[in-house]
Amino acid sequence: MSLQFGVRARDGLARRATLRTAHGIVETPAFMPVGTAATVKGLTPHELREAGTQIVLANAYHLWLRPGREIVAAAGGLHRFMAWDGPILTDSGGFQIFSLRERRTLDDDGVTFASHLDGSPHRFTPETVIAFEEALGVDIAMALDVCVRLPASPGELERAVALTTRWARRSLEARTRDATAVFGIVQGGLDRTLRERSARELVALGFDGYAIGGLSVGETRAEMEAAARFCAELLPQDRPRYLMGVGTVRDVLLAVDCGIDMFDCVYPTRCGRNGRAMTRDGEFHIRNAAFTRDLSPIDRDCSCAVCTTFTRAYLAHLFRANEMLGPRLLSYHNVYLLNALMDEARSAIEAGDWASFYRGTVERATKASLES
Amino acid sequence: MSLQFGVRARDGLARRATLRTAHGIVETPAFMPVGTAATVKGLTPHELREAGTQIVLANAYHLWLRPGREIVAAAGGLHRFMAWDGPILTDSGGFQIFSLRERRTLDDDGVTFASHLDGSPHRFTPETVIAFEEALGVDIAMALDVCVRLPASPGELERAVALTTRWARRSLEARTRDATAVFGIVQGGLDRTLRERSARELVALGFDGYAIGGLSVGETRAEMEAAARFCAELLPQDRPRYLMGVGTVRDVLLAVDCGIDMFDCVYPTRCGRNGRAMTRDGEFHIRNAAFTRDLSPIDRDCSCAVCTTFTRAYLAHLFRANEMLGPRLLSYHNVYLLNALMDEARSAIEAGDWASFYRGTVERATKASLES
Repeated sequence: MSLQFGVRARDGLARRATLRTAHGIVETPAFMPVGTAATVKGLTPHELREAGTQIVLANAYHLWLRPGREIVAAAGGLHRFMAWDGPILTDSGGFQIFSLRERRTLDDDGVTFASHLDGSPHRFTPETVIAFEEALGVDIAMALDVCVRLPASPGELERAVALTTRWARRSLEARTRDATAVFGIVQGGLDRTLRERSARELVALGFDGYAIGGLSVGETRAEMEAAARFCAELLPQDRPRYLMGVGTVRDVLLAVDCGIDMFDCVYPTRCGRNGRAMTRDGEFHIRNAAFTRDLSPIDRDCSCAVCTTFTRAYLAHLFRANEMLGPRLLSYHNVYLLNALMDEARSAIEAGDWASFYRGTVERATKASLES
Repeated sequence: MSLQFGVRARDGLARRATLRTAHGIVETPAFMPVGTAATVKGLTPHELREAGTQIVLANAYHLWLRPGREIVAAAGGLHRFMAWDGPILTDSGGFQIFSLRERRTLDDDGVTFASHLDGSPHRFTPETVIAFEEALGVDIAMALDVCVRLPASPGELERAVALTTRWARRSLEARTRDATAVFGIVQGGLDRTLRERSARELVALGFDGYAIGGLSVGETRAEMEAAARFCAELLPQDRPRYLMGVGTVRDVLLAVDCGIDMFDCVYPTRCGRNGRAMTRDGEFHIRNAAFTRDLSPIDRDCSCAVCTTFTRAYLAHLFRANEMLGPRLLSYHNVYLLNALMDEARSAIEAGDWASFYRGTVERATKASLES
């Protein structure tokens, strides 16, 4: 097994660990920027690295449809294709069972999607997904799971958990490549009994790591927080834990506080494209009139290439002029900020200072003074 | 006078010179990427420099309307505002007298534009334009000229030349800042007598440099070439010559062959955004089906960061997926390519090898083998 995971320090439930993959080391807790279609929107691999990114997420569903397995394989795998030589994790398509529920037919054996690009049918099973992820040559492949929208009926949740476990077993049996680790995904919605069952069944199968899926899909934030805390404790201490789909400053810190090691979200890059700046002092929209004359950086405590080079006034101008440099620069800053906070979180855990760091950072980020 | 210009070598009519501005040296012949709204679309100042850019063009008309003089001045000038510390040249708004002719009223004293953004009226005179360009703190300010669409009536051309000369005199009289050099713009369409008159009158006024305007505005390429050759010879040997609005490989090399030192065009970045790749072997559209599986670089002889990192197949994927990294990377490559060709042109002139370089490079670029 290529994946190695070692916890170096603990502080409360928070953990500071090292994850060794076939393409290098990830110091955790770590945020994973999302490169759905083999590109983190607007940023080069060089910039991702410069912004502190250690591992990138891509999406098997999207890459399957376009450019497709053959082209990526001919290019020598996903790393070569997108020119990112660090670790890559691919989501399996399970999230699209939730997000594209109008375009898919689910059965016990797998799921058939009508492509969101051209309507063509694509059959995803646990086996075809693992084979595809292995063909991409990624470091971590997520097993195909069944993600459901919340709220969901008890029957729907139970079926999702049962299918997810069966598919998880088939995913492990389908493995052929040591260098691609496989993570299972715990489902069960907000139902503790189902979450316990899902975690127990997956852990019994023996994955390289475990993800908490099926959150940030319609529930309240309080429900998400309670479920994340509950689920994290169900997972083994000696394997990486991954909370899927969180990416605000508040949520990633919450995840660390729950004992989560990895998380991903389109949030920082989507915000960046839309003009929403993430800072240590909360978020603001760069198009607001106040910023057209503001000669301070996006975040005065940020040492990223954007904050040390450009002013809010310039960014505000770029967004008003619909100049693509604006989304690009703000995406870079937002990713850098999350990565920098994770770096600080790692140091705080090592120093035994996590509780104070957590409280102080969340308080500062949620004062919302910038939205006045 | 802050601008210094020295011809270092000649080969035929082609010249290899050095232009010293308040913000540094430009080795000519030099291509100037266009940053209309204080940004060369999609590229950072750092990338522009890395791609071999020595001087950037911005547009007084656009910056006047947005963000406006006050904000740029408060930021410490255009260099600080856009974080480009090299030389900047601003066009004067004269081109908009041509391109926005539905939105302007021309009189002997100046021109009133109805803003293309909100319809508000803006009065441009030779004096207000020089004052604005000086407030931006640019290195080279173009005098306000009258650019007309071709074909034009003799009367229209004659009036444009007469007004351009009168405005040129007023522009020089309006100067207050040594660090901002001022260039005059020769008009006269395809009429040799008018071009001679325009050049003679401007040269008599004594500008820091001279531009050939009013080309690439509706005439054929053969007409443009003949006019550029004719006009270049009308201009003094000891001052920089600038052919406005050319940016294809073939046209910039033609310009150099005419004895031109500087040229600008949106072409490489506009092509880059639209998926049109410029190479030493001609141009091609990256969306063409042939490139989806092409693992070679955009230009096999290009040493830019894009060509040494990414394949045509990856670029083709980015454009098909409407990923903004595509336009960004292709814009970078196109700018790099033109800058690299200018570097090679400078070496060829110094080596006395210009004629052979010119013939060989144009032949190779116009074989159009890639469009097959």
